[in-house]
Amino acid sequence: MKRRQILTAAGLGLGAAALAGCKGDNQNQGLNQAAAECESNQQQTYKWKMVTSWPKNFPGLGTTAQRFADTVNELSGGRLSVQVFAAGELVPALEVFDAVSNGTAELGHSAAYYWKGKSPAAPFFTAVPFGMNAQEMNAWLYEGGGLELWQQAYADMGVVPLPCGNTGVQMAGWFNKEIHAVDDLKGLKIRMPGFGGEVLARAGATTVNLPGSEIFTALETGVIDATDWVSPYNDLAFGLYQAAKYYYYPGWQEPCAVLELSINQAALEALPADLQAIVRQTARSTNQAMLDEYTRRNAEALQTLVTEHRVQLRQLPEAVLDRLRELSADVLEDTANTDQLTRQVWDSMEAFREKVSAYHAISEQAMYGLRH
Amino acid sequence: MKRRQILTAAGLGLGAAALAGCKGDNQNQGLNQAAAECESNQQQTYKWKMVTSWPKNFPGLGTTAQRFADTVNELSGGRLSVQVFAAGELVPALEVFDAVSNGTAELGHSAAYYWKGKSPAAPFFTAVPFGMNAQEMNAWLYEGGGLELWQQAYADMGVVPLPCGNTGVQMAGWFNKEIHAVDDLKGLKIRMPGFGGEVLARAGATTVNLPGSEIFTALETGVIDATDWVSPYNDLAFGLYQAAKYYYYPGWQEPCAVLELSINQAALEALPADLQAIVRQTARSTNQAMLDEYTRRNAEALQTLVTEHRVQLRQLPEAVLDRLRELSADVLEDTANTDQLTRQVWDSMEAFREKVSAYHAISEQAMYGLRH
Repeated sequence: MKRRQILTAAGLGLGAAALAGCKGDNQNQGLNQAAAECESNQQQTYKWKMVTSWPKNFPGLGTTAQRFADTVNELSGGRLSVQVFAAGELVPALEVFDAVSNGTAELGHSAAYYWKGKSPAAPFFTAVPFGMNAQEMNAWLYEGGGLELWQQAYADMGVVPLPCGNTGVQMAGWFNKEIHAVDDLKGLKIRMPGFGGEVLARAGATTVNLPGSEIFTALETGVIDATDWVSPYNDLAFGLYQAAKYYYYPGWQEPCAVLELSINQAALEALPADLQAIVRQTARSTNQAMLDEYTRRNAEALQTLVTEHRVQLRQLPEAVLDRLRELSADVLEDTANTDQLTRQVWDSMEAFREKVSAYHAISEQAMYGLRH
Repeated sequence: MKRRQILTAAGLGLGAAALAGCKGDNQNQGLNQAAAECESNQQQTYKWKMVTSWPKNFPGLGTTAQRFADTVNELSGGRLSVQVFAAGELVPALEVFDAVSNGTAELGHSAAYYWKGKSPAAPFFTAVPFGMNAQEMNAWLYEGGGLELWQQAYADMGVVPLPCGNTGVQMAGWFNKEIHAVDDLKGLKIRMPGFGGEVLARAGATTVNLPGSEIFTALETGVIDATDWVSPYNDLAFGLYQAAKYYYYPGWQEPCAVLELSINQAALEALPADLQAIVRQTARSTNQAMLDEYTRRNAEALQTLVTEHRVQLRQLPEAVLDRLRELSADVLEDTANTDQLTRQVWDSMEAFREKVSAYHAISEQAMYGLRH
């Protein structure tokens, strides 16, 4: 590629004002050509807004949004800067999708399962009970047709989604009652949103939807018997060990949780090609970075919870998990029947999960089994 | 950020030659300033070479190197173009490190375990028997101090490494003899390089080091009784099922394999900040992309091997794996004693693995255990 000499207005001894309107100059034919040239968005800078569903710099979630923004700024040499807004600063947490759709913000960082009202398929792109883990979800999205289906779900609303962060496998939650058998779920008052909540409701539990900020008090005062949140990393920060006796595993309801970067489609397509690529690749590297962070932080937080705070770990009994698995299949199958796209999504996920499970049984799973 | 108007030489009506030497012009003070400005490497383009240890476009390995190159070209808008060379095109497969170290190429794509002679710690950065899987290795590298140690290992040789691809858990290999007990390893003629080979040698096997191209014939003619290679994806392509009866799992010797991007340090530091960031972030997104590809392709290739080619899967007996685990600990401990840095690396890896294993036992591993 030939070396092109690029000259700045300042370098030419011209004040920025002289070209502010990209005006020509009768005496200098070159400047006229330059004026036309400078309209080109070749070096145009873009200032974007990112709205999020997270409190300011919330560990893992808010910090991942900020990491994305910082990386895009760095890779673009400042040509694309992203300003991150915490939940409530520009729009409330649950209005992120609308803000991106209508262009109030060019970007959103949130979770697809909040947009069930926009697309019945949306929750499948965050977490599915007894579903795929992070490695498998990423492969389904990027190699198994999942991302195309996700983008199809939002296309009519002018929003382009990309995976942009993952928590890894979560925990089943904090309980003040022990669960010995399926009957112990009947009448259990538990905060659990999404598909997991629907499954427990079918098992006879009373499910409650509470925002994060209200969970601790509800648990402490007995308004609820149990709650899920995320996993050791975020759970430790919430101090939930002070309000509940038992910490149950495994996180059957969220074998991973995919975070969603939503992009205003028109804004994305108006970017020059290299900046569009920067947005996409930054989503991909950030997706990896968050899982790295959770893998480390969950491990450290679990140590703290167990050794410093004497948290009692409990495993859900096999019979209970078997029942939850049956009910999950029902809930997911019923939801899949909502419309054609949701059916496609669920069928695609299940086919991919079955395929990768066969190899993982003799590889990933088998290696875990070798540990003492 | 203010909008800067950038003018090209062409836009000013000046021929490229006029500025080829970045010369000034006595009549135009502005041009003099511009001449000085144009020396700036702000829009300089860079043409880099990447040497690799892989055949041209080899599935997964060669294609990942090409993916990295294409992505960097895209993100940089062509300012940093990377030309990929297959093994032998510029330098042989095992001279990639030297080529990058001495500047023959700015980049290399290979595996650290080839550079044991350069740094005894190097093999730890590719694969460790009974070690961490891809998710855990990535977390150790980016969050657990691993990457800093890796970079320390190469610092004196002017090379900067980054993880740039991962295979996931592999298979134990193709065998023409069944392994029922530890004694069956004695006298077994097996092709297996690296730490795995050292472990088998201590178990009484006769280990052989053969390049990929010679494996099939050696297996078919009985020169060797068994061989490892990678996993279903790459193994299917080699047609090894035609030369061996049994396909053993799990891949105790490589619970993952990290591919290495090596960068000439001087060349990296000569890049403007945004291009340096592009190189680093592209390594990270490519690292994810290769694991996505292997997760999908291994699953599909296993299906083909089992259903179309009637491959017989065999599981290594627990007693054999117990013995291999003991011997692995010995080999790794002995290697760690080579020098201070290697000791630091091994201690860091083991401490991290122990930490993440505790959480993964009740999360990732527990979720796999729920599958039928």
